[in-house]
Amino acid sequence: MRSVFNFSAGPAVLPEEVLRQAAEEMLDWHGSGQSVMEMSHRGKEYMSIHAQAERDFRDLLGVPDDYAVLFLQGGATQQFAMVPANLMRGKGVADYLHTGEWSKKAIKEAGLYGRVNVVASSEDRNFTYVPAFDTWKRSPDAAYVHVCGNETIGGVELHDWPDTGDVPLVADVSSHFLSRPLEVTRFGLIYGGAQKNIGPAGLAIVVVRRDLLGHAPRGTPTMLDYKPQADNDSMLNTPPTWAIYVSGLVFQWLKRQGGLAAIERRNVAKAKLLYDCLDASSFFRNPVAREDRSRMNVPFTLARPELDDTFLKGAQERGMIQLKGHRSVGGMRASIYNAMPVEGVQRLADYLREFETRHG
Amino acid sequence: MRSVFNFSAGPAVLPEEVLRQAAEEMLDWHGSGQSVMEMSHRGKEYMSIHAQAERDFRDLLGVPDDYAVLFLQGGATQQFAMVPANLMRGKGVADYLHTGEWSKKAIKEAGLYGRVNVVASSEDRNFTYVPAFDTWKRSPDAAYVHVCGNETIGGVELHDWPDTGDVPLVADVSSHFLSRPLEVTRFGLIYGGAQKNIGPAGLAIVVVRRDLLGHAPRGTPTMLDYKPQADNDSMLNTPPTWAIYVSGLVFQWLKRQGGLAAIERRNVAKAKLLYDCLDASSFFRNPVAREDRSRMNVPFTLARPELDDTFLKGAQERGMIQLKGHRSVGGMRASIYNAMPVEGVQRLADYLREFETRHG
Repeated sequence: MRSVFNFSAGPAVLPEEVLRQAAEEMLDWHGSGQSVMEMSHRGKEYMSIHAQAERDFRDLLGVPDDYAVLFLQGGATQQFAMVPANLMRGKGVADYLHTGEWSKKAIKEAGLYGRVNVVASSEDRNFTYVPAFDTWKRSPDAAYVHVCGNETIGGVELHDWPDTGDVPLVADVSSHFLSRPLEVTRFGLIYGGAQKNIGPAGLAIVVVRRDLLGHAPRGTPTMLDYKPQADNDSMLNTPPTWAIYVSGLVFQWLKRQGGLAAIERRNVAKAKLLYDCLDASSFFRNPVAREDRSRMNVPFTLARPELDDTFLKGAQERGMIQLKGHRSVGGMRASIYNAMPVEGVQRLADYLREFETRHG
Repeated sequence: MRSVFNFSAGPAVLPEEVLRQAAEEMLDWHGSGQSVMEMSHRGKEYMSIHAQAERDFRDLLGVPDDYAVLFLQGGATQQFAMVPANLMRGKGVADYLHTGEWSKKAIKEAGLYGRVNVVASSEDRNFTYVPAFDTWKRSPDAAYVHVCGNETIGGVELHDWPDTGDVPLVADVSSHFLSRPLEVTRFGLIYGGAQKNIGPAGLAIVVVRRDLLGHAPRGTPTMLDYKPQADNDSMLNTPPTWAIYVSGLVFQWLKRQGGLAAIERRNVAKAKLLYDCLDASSFFRNPVAREDRSRMNVPFTLARPELDDTFLKGAQERGMIQLKGHRSVGGMRASIYNAMPVEGVQRLADYLREFETRHG
């Protein structure tokens, strides 16, 4: 095992065995004489990598055939525009839940394409909870309902999904993608950047019900239209081949771990270890409502913020890095994605207790 | 040296020492305990990689301070939309030179944003030459003039650039980026996908004169607007960090080769070796006008097309791969980018002579 545990919120830790395999195959993938980075995307070698990655992703998440899986570029941020560009379908209004920084960005961009109805907001308590589904003020004519499944900065997660009836439910799942099973048929569209819980930056994955394709208005840039991307199996132009290859290695690693149900059990245990430690402390504090806490991103503050730097320095000395909180909220944040070993979370919990004993 | 020479048109061959370094640093970049793929893009380690890549790129190409260098996603295909979205500036018409497949795609996409005036086309001779500058029919009110510097499929290259006066000259240089020096101040904007002559797929590099920023109309998706990308040093959202890192290693490799003037001399020699061999042959043929031949992509046909598969099989047995021509034109194509060693071109030339002796 590597000596350093990386708690970065993204790009983030990858499984060590994935990195070892990528390094070993770097100069000569499977005797082809090529690095994956050097392969024509139309050649049989890369085509097999691409197809296998899509198959494994579909297996893991249980994606039915009437949903397209797209490997795109531009991250979730580009999806903030592509979702309304493709799904507004002349309806002029879309429903958005506002639970923090990433919801806010999605809402702002959707405003370029129509009216945004904010069904509910947790701004009143500084984005530390998920507004109950039965309090949402939905538009009768919304084109879709958009939620951010996990707010990476606030550390707030939707542990269940609203029932939106016939209105397509759209979820940005960037920071908890593949961290737990998902009932895909409850969604019209799911999207996420890969660089948090899946693979390298530069890849966004979109799962979209096929009947929602083909509705982008005339004048939509070709790269922002899901339909030609789906028609060309995500090869409308050269796809981000290396990022898809590494993500494919992560999918195979996830299968070896037992799939999403198994990884969820491990994620539940890792999160419990850390939250129990924080809740038992009178020095450290996580501000999020217990039932809405993220299993992936755990923000916490010290009772004495003047010790923040001391805390980070001690963490570094103990082989724990990237624990500094997002610049917009301060404090600390431990991102404990799929690839963070339980030993890393244990080391952090031990350090929290040690630090409190010394400075609390 | 590796045993296989890869003539792929893109993604394409990378310098062996770049691949070795990427493999060696895979699990632990410079003692940081992280792979580059795992680094927060806001952390000091990745920020240093990003800044160094931009500095080296600027050094190599001689980019003045009044030009922004942007590391973006979506490839040149996304630029086909971003260029008119940002540079049309209400003028309603843009001039495009039509020299082949990639010009055609750029022209089609620009049509979403205004009128396209095709100043000249080489379609009359199947895109095998560059129409002389003095024959171009330019619009008096064009927002910009667009050319494709090197047509990867047709194997046609602009060895000089037109003087467009005060009208910004825009060039898609994807497949000959950094293959020769370029006088940046002659251009309003230069763009290219990295995956042909620079680095991995998933990165597009844009060099744009700063006075051309900030003119995208209201309603332009944020990710398609150069201005916020420039204002945020290409970190409007998470950039394709791995692709930028590997491209940075390629920039350093180019500097060690002596920079662009030195690499151009080598490219001239490599191209001469191959074209001389084709021109001396009565069996193989390159259709492009001599003065417009690409130094990067060399398409050629066999006098007996029924031997195409035999040729490719023999090449493979001799350690030469990806020589099959683009599906739209057939025949063969040898892409001999910066990272193709002269030994690879020599081996191909030897094989051409051997093949002709046996089958010609």
